[in-house]
Amino acid sequence: MKKVYNFSAGPAILPREAMEAGSRACLEFQGMGMSLLEISHRSKEYEAVVADACAIVKELLGVPDGYKVLFLQGGASLQFAMVPMNLLGENETAAYLNSGVWADKAIKEAKLFGSVNVVASSKDANYTFIPKDYAVPADAQYFHVTSNNTIYGTQLQRFPESPVPLVSDMSSDIFSRPVDVSKFGLIYAGAQKNMGIAGTTLVIIREDWLGKNKRKLPSMLDYKVHADNDSMYNTPPAFAIYMALETLKWVKAQGGVQAMQKRNEEKAALLYGEIDRNPSFKGTCAVEDRSRMNITFVMNKPELEGAFLKEAEAAGLSGLKGHRSVGGFRASVYNAMGLDGVQALVDVMRNFDQKNS
Amino acid sequence: MKKVYNFSAGPAILPREAMEAGSRACLEFQGMGMSLLEISHRSKEYEAVVADACAIVKELLGVPDGYKVLFLQGGASLQFAMVPMNLLGENETAAYLNSGVWADKAIKEAKLFGSVNVVASSKDANYTFIPKDYAVPADAQYFHVTSNNTIYGTQLQRFPESPVPLVSDMSSDIFSRPVDVSKFGLIYAGAQKNMGIAGTTLVIIREDWLGKNKRKLPSMLDYKVHADNDSMYNTPPAFAIYMALETLKWVKAQGGVQAMQKRNEEKAALLYGEIDRNPSFKGTCAVEDRSRMNITFVMNKPELEGAFLKEAEAAGLSGLKGHRSVGGFRASVYNAMGLDGVQALVDVMRNFDQKNS
Repeated sequence: MKKVYNFSAGPAILPREAMEAGSRACLEFQGMGMSLLEISHRSKEYEAVVADACAIVKELLGVPDGYKVLFLQGGASLQFAMVPMNLLGENETAAYLNSGVWADKAIKEAKLFGSVNVVASSKDANYTFIPKDYAVPADAQYFHVTSNNTIYGTQLQRFPESPVPLVSDMSSDIFSRPVDVSKFGLIYAGAQKNMGIAGTTLVIIREDWLGKNKRKLPSMLDYKVHADNDSMYNTPPAFAIYMALETLKWVKAQGGVQAMQKRNEEKAALLYGEIDRNPSFKGTCAVEDRSRMNITFVMNKPELEGAFLKEAEAAGLSGLKGHRSVGGFRASVYNAMGLDGVQALVDVMRNFDQKNS
Repeated sequence: MKKVYNFSAGPAILPREAMEAGSRACLEFQGMGMSLLEISHRSKEYEAVVADACAIVKELLGVPDGYKVLFLQGGASLQFAMVPMNLLGENETAAYLNSGVWADKAIKEAKLFGSVNVVASSKDANYTFIPKDYAVPADAQYFHVTSNNTIYGTQLQRFPESPVPLVSDMSSDIFSRPVDVSKFGLIYAGAQKNMGIAGTTLVIIREDWLGKNKRKLPSMLDYKVHADNDSMYNTPPAFAIYMALETLKWVKAQGGVQAMQKRNEEKAALLYGEIDRNPSFKGTCAVEDRSRMNITFVMNKPELEGAFLKEAEAAGLSGLKGHRSVGGFRASVYNAMGLDGVQALVDVMRNFDQKNS
């Protein structure tokens, strides 16, 4: 079968090694004579999976002491609500940066629980850039930022200075580069981009923020309950956590997040270089905010976009259609995408331009 | 490798066919040249998985018109909170039957949102029976019952008559027998017993109950949001839903829930027959409430329990240790367990008794 390059925004390309490990574990796990899918989450074999997954997260990101690593369910969308539910009192304020539709949804959920100060927004410009000049109030409980905006192809190149701890949705670029975790009170990320499959959500939280707010919470929505039970308050999404472990083992084997950063910069340089050079294409967002994970571009002659997409698909390039709110194309080049996939895309762009100009 | 019989309470034994389908899908899905783990949840191939999973649930349970089938995350434990959050107003009352620790947890969560009337409880008897003489108030919003109590080995043989719609946690016996869905306002079940792997939760809800309560809810905790988006409000737990589909396809191929009921009655008759016949063993709960899913028993000489467990494990019988609050043994004989597994257990019980009496 022809090689397919998967440029989907998420669920997304995973390391082949991780998918093969998952496939084997579906049949037999660690000589138990049973599948990983059917063993008790209280077995010593499975408890080691969760412990190893937490340990590799800490190792890869250099998580300092005083933080708890959790694997939860519900995606980033549930975190939009859990963050303010746990961290924002009714009479308190949290600061939010509105840099995309996911940030906007996080803001909407936070308003159910307390005061929200949107320090800046690029909504009126269809989120084509990340706002930079703003002040974060010193009395805010936290400052929420989205590290990478999957739909618009923008990314925080540096996390902002803030008088209060950052909370960040890193769903679409976690483990793609080093991060100074000590600046954050809480980091969350749905797994289905750089970290494995849909069905689990990573949360890294300052231990002194557990039980921060005195609101009465349902057990499953209380970070402290999950922390006290090491992510095993109830049956965890066992296979999804295993896939996170296998994916992160691959990241480590490649050289960790430093190596990922180099790999991602090389891919981005190749593709943005072609977008800027090729007369048929152009980028969609502010150059200084360009994402290294989701690379968005359109054609100078929009009427050719259908034909280009067809040629790309014929060449085995899958998932390139842009989000409806931006149009054109989006090449998601997460950690597991190799330079060869980006080169294959660049080749199709060159050929298409030569034929059509 | 020696055949292992998996008697775990959950995650639990699954049909071999489902695990093999899962293993293959990890590598390649439907000729796409990609793994199921990495394709977009918006692809037509994956959207068909969710649609097929909803359709087979409706078919197997005979779900009438006017109900919505949802696949959510968070397990039954999150439903303990979502049910009252969505269905119980602050000044309203819901009725609950306390037949086990999971019912008790559901009651605790419901109290955060409204008035709870516990119509009966067997807590003081360590839940060794299911209470039967009680009245359900006609002004209750719903009457919540746990259909099967995994820990104690009790099961509702018939669902109670009730002046108000039932809400039922069917996590550990759904699809094990026919159910008259029209008596229920809402049914929920974590998937990891009869329905697949941990990581997704089935909810079947009366459509006229969507948006029933006017409380302001976070989007991810609002049944109406999930119903309006056909379980795709955010990225669903894609692999877990696929495993539910494959597990339910197996149930259908065996003859549906009627065939499962017959199979489960045969297994239960064989094992309870041995427990009652064998002088070394005895059951732990009221005979009329005995579960066909989780069969609990102890030894008349408790000092022999360690030795019996060892012999059982040596014979390839895994997961038989009873829950700490009951002690002894628990044989979980969900749909996918065959009569051969139960026979293997009965053989070990006979041999052990003969050697030790």
